[in-house]
Amino acid sequence: MSAVVRDIHRVERRILDALADCGVATVHEAQGRSGLVDPRLRPIYPGARIAGPAITISAPPGDNWMLHVAAELCRDGDILVVAPTGPSDHGYFGELLATSLRARGVRGLVIDAGVRDVRELAAMQFPVWSRYVSARGTVKETLGSVNVPIVCAGAPINAGDVIVADDDGVCVVPRDKAQAVLDACKAREEREAKVRARLAKGELGLDIYDMRARLAAKGLRYEEG
Amino acid sequence: MSAVVRDIHRVERRILDALADCGVATVHEAQGRSGLVDPRLRPIYPGARIAGPAITISAPPGDNWMLHVAAELCRDGDILVVAPTGPSDHGYFGELLATSLRARGVRGLVIDAGVRDVRELAAMQFPVWSRYVSARGTVKETLGSVNVPIVCAGAPINAGDVIVADDDGVCVVPRDKAQAVLDACKAREEREAKVRARLAKGELGLDIYDMRARLAAKGLRYEEG
Amino acid sequence: MSAVVRDIHRVERRILDALADCGVATVHEAQGRSGLVDPRLRPIYPGARIAGPAITISAPPGDNWMLHVAAELCRDGDILVVAPTGPSDHGYFGELLATSLRARGVRGLVIDAGVRDVRELAAMQFPVWSRYVSARGTVKETLGSVNVPIVCAGAPINAGDVIVADDDGVCVVPRDKAQAVLDACKAREEREAKVRARLAKGELGLDIYDMRARLAAKGLRYEEG
Amino acid sequence: MSAVVRDIHRVERRILDALADCGVATVHEAQGRSGLVDPRLRPIYPGARIAGPAITISAPPGDNWMLHVAAELCRDGDILVVAPTGPSDHGYFGELLATSLRARGVRGLVIDAGVRDVRELAAMQFPVWSRYVSARGTVKETLGSVNVPIVCAGAPINAGDVIVADDDGVCVVPRDKAQAVLDACKAREEREAKVRARLAKGELGLDIYDMRARLAAKGLRYEEG
Amino acid sequence: MSAVVRDIHRVERRILDALADCGVATVHEAQGRSGLVDPRLRPIYPGARIAGPAITISAPPGDNWMLHVAAELCRDGDILVVAPTGPSDHGYFGELLATSLRARGVRGLVIDAGVRDVRELAAMQFPVWSRYVSARGTVKETLGSVNVPIVCAGAPINAGDVIVADDDGVCVVPRDKAQAVLDACKAREEREAKVRARLAKGELGLDIYDMRARLAAKGLRYEEG
Amino acid sequence: MSAVVRDIHRVERRILDALADCGVATVHEAQGRSGLVDPRLRPIYPGARIAGPAITISAPPGDNWMLHVAAELCRDGDILVVAPTGPSDHGYFGELLATSLRARGVRGLVIDAGVRDVRELAAMQFPVWSRYVSARGTVKETLGSVNVPIVCAGAPINAGDVIVADDDGVCVVPRDKAQAVLDACKAREEREAKVRARLAKGELGLDIYDMRARLAAKGLRYEEG
Repeated sequence: MSAVVRDIHRVERRILDALADCGVATVHEAQGRSGLVDPRLRPIYPGARIAGPAITISAPPGDNWMLHVAAELCRDGDILVVAPTGPSDHGYFGELLATSLRARGVRGLVIDAGVRDVRELAAMQFPVWSRYVSARGTVKETLGSVNVPIVCAGAPINAGDVIVADDDGVCVVPRDKAQAVLDACKAREEREAKVRARLAKGELGLDIYDMRARLAAKGLRYEEG
Repeated sequence: MSAVVRDIHRVERRILDALADCGVATVHEAQGRSGLVDPRLRPIYPGARIAGPAITISAPPGDNWMLHVAAELCRDGDILVVAPTGPSDHGYFGELLATSLRARGVRGLVIDAGVRDVRELAAMQFPVWSRYVSARGTVKETLGSVNVPIVCAGAPINAGDVIVADDDGVCVVPRDKAQAVLDACKAREEREAKVRARLAKGELGLDIYDMRARLAAKGLRYEEG
Repeated sequence: MSAVVRDIHRVERRILDALADCGVATVHEAQGRSGLVDPRLRPIYPGARIAGPAITISAPPGDNWMLHVAAELCRDGDILVVAPTGPSDHGYFGELLATSLRARGVRGLVIDAGVRDVRELAAMQFPVWSRYVSARGTVKETLGSVNVPIVCAGAPINAGDVIVADDDGVCVVPRDKAQAVLDACKAREEREAKVRARLAKGELGLDIYDMRARLAAKGLRYEEG
Repeated sequence: MSAVVRDIHRVERRILDALADCGVATVHEAQGRSGLVDPRLRPIYPGARIAGPAITISAPPGDNWMLHVAAELCRDGDILVVAPTGPSDHGYFGELLATSLRARGVRGLVIDAGVRDVRELAAMQFPVWSRYVSARGTVKETLGSVNVPIVCAGAPINAGDVIVADDDGVCVVPRDKAQAVLDACKAREEREAKVRARLAKGELGLDIYDMRARLAAKGLRYEEG
Repeated sequence: MSAVVRDIHRVERRILDALADCGVATVHEAQGRSGLVDPRLRPIYPGARIAGPAITISAPPGDNWMLHVAAELCRDGDILVVAPTGPSDHGYFGELLATSLRARGVRGLVIDAGVRDVRELAAMQFPVWSRYVSARGTVKETLGSVNVPIVCAGAPINAGDVIVADDDGVCVVPRDKAQAVLDACKAREEREAKVRARLAKGELGLDIYDMRARLAAKGLRYEEG
Repeated sequence: MSAVVRDIHRVERRILDALADCGVATVHEAQGRSGLVDPRLRPIYPGARIAGPAITISAPPGDNWMLHVAAELCRDGDILVVAPTGPSDHGYFGELLATSLRARGVRGLVIDAGVRDVRELAAMQFPVWSRYVSARGTVKETLGSVNVPIVCAGAPINAGDVIVADDDGVCVVPRDKAQAVLDACKAREEREAKVRARLAKGELGLDIYDMRARLAAKGLRYEEG
């Protein structure tokens, strides 16, 4: 029931950085509206944008022991992703663990539970997406697992999958699709740039996307006010 | 089941701007503690204060097609108000639609569902009050209605009703009561200015509002600690 | 059913200020992971850190009369703590009451319900931890109690207990344990400072806390990826 | 802010009884998927099916005074509908009020708050749809309104509108559409009876509703397992 | 942080049985609308009515070890009351523990978390009030406390306090007030019997409780429909 | 983004029936406390116990078209499992679809959304585990997928995995582990039968499970009351 996998396969840094630049909304759309982590996970401070391979953790409720086990396995650029085995509002993570992870080059944390020391984490600019801000303390009594498949806030995640996170939330890209998704993102961004310019001039989506005929066919009817 | 009403009656700009200045708490009190939208709708960034006539949208869950239909009907100063026909955490609205609405002079969005691109929306200073921040993508498959009566987050709203929104939330003023509510707001503000000055000097609400006798009559009794 | 206790015993200011500096997470741990108020209470703006003796209020849902009664009993340094007798999202408190409390030296408010005028409260730097931001108005019709034992967001609180609040939430220290908890906080901070320095250099919690043997004894096993 | 309207217009009993027989799901569909009260309202015991004109009540949180005011206005066949002005889990209603309403011929209660004495209510077979079962007591201190337009659990309701309630929930039919909705229900029931017979024999909805071509046109593709 | 108190003071059986007969709503009212456990706790099957002294348990989330420790301390007539130290939907309790408790004469369980084997518990007629029905398994790794003061679903409870539970929920009576509350219940029941008879004959609460003058004084006004 | 896989591999009936007899709590424990679907899914009537291979459906919110597509692929003994792509309280399923599925031998439905016609479904004894009972109507406009991997109420499920469901909730057994889990269940049941007999005689879990030494080693200390 407990397992710790030492190493994971990591997507190359160039792709990760480019996915971070694209942002969560674009990545989510570009891979066919999949991979979104439930929006109950929110950033503890605005403005962070990161991407990196997931070090996955399955941890018991109220027990953060496995975060210490996982810290040893992290490498530069990784993102820790924690799924409790039941709902939990404990503060699994704070400034000390962030200091440790930062020393190893970890880019951030995604957790479907609580974190604390948020003032200090913001001062350190250590990005966290969490369900709760909570000082509720944890114990170190029960084993969990590291780098096994998890479901975090509704999203299935394998170790090494790419986590993309920004102010819009968190999205997961399967490791072997990272390059393809990046390509799709770039194509989408190009299309959107053109649309944006037309919208800014006052053109309507109705016309740009040719929606009028389809709306009429569906039966849309206008009435005077 | 689907209807789009082209035009609405709009309250004059002078009244709208004055109501925005009064703010949600004052407007809500001045019209007899009515019209409040459920506080689950929160601003995506602090500091915005707007008022404007409601362009109302009833949209299926996860389908933002009607926002494009509504965009065409918006005029300078309007506020879009979106009620999904069932609970939804989809991101109906983002930077592209905001660009389109801004080009038409729209002042902001109120939505009992999700929005995305919040970093960009904040940078544009496009005000939004929403239930969720969520990148979850929408489709354009099912019709809804525009400028029909809706219930948004518990508040009944007719097209053209005045929406007032600030950091305290969102309030609705029936269109034909806008001037009367504004007058009541002004009277309230005057009364409050006097009370504020007395409170700042250390006088108590107990005395300013003459509460002591009524409290005693109700049976309030003091004990020594 | 209604009672108002005029006076409370207050912990000396020196201890209060020191507890505020320690912060919620440290205080909660130092007193054995107890006293935490449910994390659903959140600060209305970031950065405030306060501690003070609790003036407790048990108030009916949607009725803020007792806050006026309590205001008279507040002294310099106090913190108002409000527990509704049933769930409530009304805005019990706004800028006028804050003006009154500030004039009496009150340091802040903790409330398991709503507050309004948050823009003005932030401008005044009057700290509030609340469950909701809500303009929903209250009445003054039904008595409650002041300085009686309450349960606020799951935490039992007696009048005069020390409230510590910051960006991580709110914690309660029994009045007669304030000095002992402060001592435990100081000891904890010293230990953490040493650990922090080692973590920053790249040492692992696994080694600093001597976890490896205990993990192995529990059955932790590593697999290659 | 408080108003009590003495009398309402009632739909004739024949239509009410027929709508009760049709049930909530059919009525909701027959009137174009509108009028549904939020499914958070649940029956306190299974098996009840009622319809009747709404006596509407807007009541403060935790205050059931207006239910007594409304009782006097009820006539044989009516249904009481209670919307608190803010969320409330108080038990507004129990066996004594049910005894009073039964004596007046009232068919049931719909309330977006709590009720108590559910064992006794079930024994009396007095049907109730509520958000909570809760013994939390109420006061009689603050006025509300009777027979004014309300929003109950998300659904706008006018006094005299037809309430239909069964194990599937609660639906509202505008008073002046009751006969038309009943006609649409009957037509729907006839269609469904034919479909049911075919489905029971093993025919598929895909064929009965001619879905295959439309699915293919949308791009549905089958893969072998 | 962990403590187990071996013995508690128990209220005499005669009083307990009489309080069970009165039921939760009456007890809650008779002691001044206090002591109610949050209505999120619901019975796993209808019809049970019990009262007994509380054996209190503070247990870590997802860890039911302390229930075994408590079982040894239970005597005939007791009720186990479990408060997790953080939210938990684990199934702490099932048919085996119920078999053990029944062998010791325990009357039932109140838990602000989950239970499982509800089919078997219903067949045994072992009454349980819980927040969740959940098969999620627990561990036995971390200590908690038994017979210490707890807060269970918002209600402060001391070991030996009287728990009263029925279909309306759960209420707590302080041990030293049990006889006085019972007396108040009896008086209330007598008053209610008289009121019930009058209501059943069609008299109105408005008249029985003499509300008309007070309503008018508050400003209630009637309008014709 | 849409895919329909025609066929799945099914576990043999003998194993399915035996797993249904074991029940959810035993299966969940026997496979190492994994596979549990979130307890927010509840049976619409008590007493059903089923097991069968999952026909998985990923459906848009408020759109039940894919249930018709899936119906064609069902065989005798299957269980339909529906995960909406975003939260939804629509009633995707009612008596007509149940009639269709029953004609094909389907054993039941698991859905993280709503169902309706629950009175009729109970009368048919067609078992359903759902998040909501809701008459809210659905459309047939947007494609989804059938027999692809889904996450339903937090649990990852592949087509053909074994669903076990009873009054305690829903659990998933990976298809290729069904026999091994059944064996573990049988061993567990044997152990539990012995423990049950001892507990029924009054022996304590503390002694049967040899907990005393381990509790003492952890530091458990007893105090007299």
